Amino acid sequence: MTKREGKVSIFSLGGLGEIGKNMYCVEYQDEIIVIDSGLKFPDDDMLGVDLVIPDTSYLLENQQKVKGVFLTHGHEDHIGAIPYVFKDLRAPIYGAPLTIELVKSKLEEHNLLRDNPLYTVSSDEEIHFAHLSVSFFRTTHSIPDSIGIVVHTPLGVVIHTGDFKFDFTPVGPKAEISKISKLGQNGVLALLSDSTNSEKPGSTPSESSVRNGIEQIFDEADGRVLFATFASNVYRIQQAVEASISHNRRLCVVGRSMKKVFEISRKLGYINVPEQMIVDVQSVNRMPPSEVTILCTGSQGEPLSALSRIAQGRDKWIQISTGDTVVFSSSPIPGNTVNINRTINNLFRAGANVIYGSILDIHTSGHGHQEDLKLMLNLVKPKYFVPIHGEYRMQIQHSQLAQSVGVPAENIFIMDIGDVLEISSEDARVVEKISSGTVLVDGSGVGDVGNIVLRDRRLLAADGIIVIVVTVNMRERQLLSGPDIVTRGFVYMRDSEQLIRDAAKMIESLIQSMLAEDITSWGDWKYQISHELGKFLVEKTGRRPMVLPVIMEV
Amino acid sequence: MTKREGKVSIFSLGGLGEIGKNMYCVEYQDEIIVIDSGLKFPDDDMLGVDLVIPDTSYLLENQQKVKGVFLTHGHEDHIGAIPYVFKDLRAPIYGAPLTIELVKSKLEEHNLLRDNPLYTVSSDEEIHFAHLSVSFFRTTHSIPDSIGIVVHTPLGVVIHTGDFKFDFTPVGPKAEISKISKLGQNGVLALLSDSTNSEKPGSTPSESSVRNGIEQIFDEADGRVLFATFASNVYRIQQAVEASISHNRRLCVVGRSMKKVFEISRKLGYINVPEQMIVDVQSVNRMPPSEVTILCTGSQGEPLSALSRIAQGRDKWIQISTGDTVVFSSSPIPGNTVNINRTINNLFRAGANVIYGSILDIHTSGHGHQEDLKLMLNLVKPKYFVPIHGEYRMQIQHSQLAQSVGVPAENIFIMDIGDVLEISSEDARVVEKISSGTVLVDGSGVGDVGNIVLRDRRLLAADGIIVIVVTVNMRERQLLSGPDIVTRGFVYMRDSEQLIRDAAKMIESLIQSMLAEDITSWGDWKYQISHELGKFLVEKTGRRPMVLPVIMEV
Repeated sequence: MTKREGKVSIFSLGGLGEIGKNMYCVEYQDEIIVIDSGLKFPDDDMLGVDLVIPDTSYLLENQQKVKGVFLTHGHEDHIGAIPYVFKDLRAPIYGAPLTIELVKSKLEEHNLLRDNPLYTVSSDEEIHFAHLSVSFFRTTHSIPDSIGIVVHTPLGVVIHTGDFKFDFTPVGPKAEISKISKLGQNGVLALLSDSTNSEKPGSTPSESSVRNGIEQIFDEADGRVLFATFASNVYRIQQAVEASISHNRRLCVVGRSMKKVFEISRKLGYINVPEQMIVDVQSVNRMPPSEVTILCTGSQGEPLSALSRIAQGRDKWIQISTGDTVVFSSSPIPGNTVNINRTINNLFRAGANVIYGSILDIHTSGHGHQEDLKLMLNLVKPKYFVPIHGEYRMQIQHSQLAQSVGVPAENIFIMDIGDVLEISSEDARVVEKISSGTVLVDGSGVGDVGNIVLRDRRLLAADGIIVIVVTVNMRERQLLSGPDIVTRGFVYMRDSEQLIRDAAKMIESLIQSMLAEDITSWGDWKYQISHELGKFLVEKTGRRPMVLPVIMEV
Repeated sequence: MTKREGKVSIFSLGGLGEIGKNMYCVEYQDEIIVIDSGLKFPDDDMLGVDLVIPDTSYLLENQQKVKGVFLTHGHEDHIGAIPYVFKDLRAPIYGAPLTIELVKSKLEEHNLLRDNPLYTVSSDEEIHFAHLSVSFFRTTHSIPDSIGIVVHTPLGVVIHTGDFKFDFTPVGPKAEISKISKLGQNGVLALLSDSTNSEKPGSTPSESSVRNGIEQIFDEADGRVLFATFASNVYRIQQAVEASISHNRRLCVVGRSMKKVFEISRKLGYINVPEQMIVDVQSVNRMPPSEVTILCTGSQGEPLSALSRIAQGRDKWIQISTGDTVVFSSSPIPGNTVNINRTINNLFRAGANVIYGSILDIHTSGHGHQEDLKLMLNLVKPKYFVPIHGEYRMQIQHSQLAQSVGVPAENIFIMDIGDVLEISSEDARVVEKISSGTVLVDGSGVGDVGNIVLRDRRLLAADGIIVIVVTVNMRERQLLSGPDIVTRGFVYMRDSEQLIRDAAKMIESLIQSMLAEDITSWGDWKYQISHELGKFLVEKTGRRPMVLPVIMEV
């Protein structure tokens, strides 16, 4: 980035024009404050890819400027990239207690704990650097210890809301509204605010509003209650815990991530449950069904989750039987609907009573609807506004909300990742684009799967592959062996022997004629074989498998 | 099926436990009445598959019994399998005018029009066979000419509702409620009723309820209006046509299927538009934007549709510019959400004002909500009830609705495809299972893609393939050429030369040691190479590509 005296630069390496891999930066002189370092789950067409993380090459090139990474909360789309980004990047990591505990366990898994110091902050602290300092305010969201980040610059204050809604009757502590309001009164240079629910009218219902729905389920359940939600939705889990205790049910926690977050949250005091109320999964089957609650993951139909396994009758310990009640305390993330429905159908088939969707009020979002967003804008009264954390349509809607409460259109910046918003004491504008993008993680490889590999995977997925191998003695113009044909994912070979024989015959005569015509270039051979075989197969089958000729010379 | 004197059998070859490929049958003595013959779109894990159709082997084995196929309406999930099923099956096809016109154009495309007689019926006709006869009643749904089917048997009347809602202010003709009611008064043996919206409380809003939303959009639009809906949603299109005419906009119809249905519907009088109001796409750009409405498909974000092309700036004639309004007059089908959102984002980026989702009342479903379903049950008062056309959870909810209006639980049958419900004058029960299932269509192949091919496609999609070829002279225990390694979809080969060289070296020494140990069985070679190479690659890359060893012997 061009060095600009006395100007504040704001840019994002992930989270604009997309949901996921959040990473935002505030730069002033030789100091960069990084906010979040999240991952994204791959799109459907990113076949075989495990995770998507931001391209952080700009930060690596400016390693010495990076003063710290400040985490707003512990969701994967905000902390999930840390083990990959912090393999190379060295910087202290700051966050509230639960966030830091979750990061710690991630870094431990990747053997990276020693290299990056972790600092647990309270929302009242302020961290000072040479020109910049950072303070916080508590927000309400679907995980405890969510905070907004305030970057104090010589030109004014930049506020990043983190993920938030305004919950006036939260299950945990309240948001620090007066702190936000005071910042607003003193003047805020720029606001970066969560756009996730900017399309949704009204206010987001409070977390405590689902309490009645949960109580009703426990009142009516005769058999076991299986309560499925995100492992990180700690206050939801606390509500299920309280309902269980008041209904004399003991708790069984199932699934690796659910167990991990449950234990950390108990240690931090965010989940309160007496030790004797907890039972292990092995003893659940020996207990009367009406005395058991099972807490599990899988509310998004994730194929590898505990609930999917249970729904398919593949779990070692927990089998659904008639009388069991299964609660989906979550809303479907787009793209997961088909898997969720499959799980629900399987549970019904196994005999469970399944409570899901809009049947009862058993879920509320952690992201502010339009009225929440307008309240934030009214409290902060920013000079410049950047809608963040959302797809383009959400950014657009958020921009319209901001205009409706009086932010001038020309002071709103709908940015893309990599865009640099430069703010001076006079004005603000997008001045340049730095390197940014998506880095794909597949197995232990980070960034080595690119467009060519993905294109090949898509071709292979659609119609499979046909491999033709010949061994030739080019000097003597002699076909020594083959053509041998092997296919995978194209046709079932045993049912298609004639097709394969015809294809082999066709290629053999093609080779003989190439030999007779003195065509000996491998390039020509490969092109001719691919071309002729492709034509033959599309005509016979209507399919276009990948054709892979291998010529062995002896 | 075991022959049973004096009993009525009801079974389904598609549409139970699933949305799609609807096909239901009523059998009595030597007569089978088939209702619908639909297709289903493949699940995400059916890689490369184009369509899914029912397994109709039972009907082929009983070809002489099949008296006719009666179509409830012209949606793909009710008529889409006809060109595949009727390649082999011979039977007359009956349906209302629009349905038959749509089938005709399908059969023409497949060159099958001569082989199967098509009969256009009115809802007042009755078709008589030796023991059975068939009559109809008009319903209201999201396509004109939707009908319910009444099969008159010696044991009583079997009613199949088709897809329906109760629309008391429809855009087209009203449902024949009094006919349904009269059937109910005379006693109905069994009701098969649409379960699609059985999870949704209340009544489905009328088609005419979206009129205000549409008018408002046209009132406010300054530039062009692009109106996207299903091609088959003819009454919706008629409403857009009327709004266009009243706002002095001419109509441009875009997309192959939209054009086809538009023309058929005009011919049948279901769309009324003066010829001079229609403009072709080539002249649209020369007209003032405020005088144009573009009707197009693509409301489900289908990648190959007109709207997706337009949104990506890839359409030859239509480019989005600032001031254009794009309307999504549809609701997302689960599984399409991600594609729809992508299209909306692209349209916003191109400068359009996009109206979608719950922003305005611009869509209503064609399937009855709970109150509609209860009204049908109350009118028909069936002895036996079979919830059809839905996933298991929808069948369950529909069964609960039926119980709430007084159908005894033991008279409700939640069936799966292939289950045969046998009704005698005394009782009804599921007695056996006939052959049924899914047949996959891929290219020109029908049924030749099975589990093995799909499993291979999934493996190939996840991590690609690595092919290792060696040429050996087994007699002289000599490696003549190779190992040559080719990969696709695994790693980018140019960036992974060292990995490939190491793998080749490893395989070469493995082969040399097998030759030295006199191991010459190809099976042993292939196993050893696959095993060792797989182990090597998972350790180096964390990936498990398909390993394909090819041994050429000279």
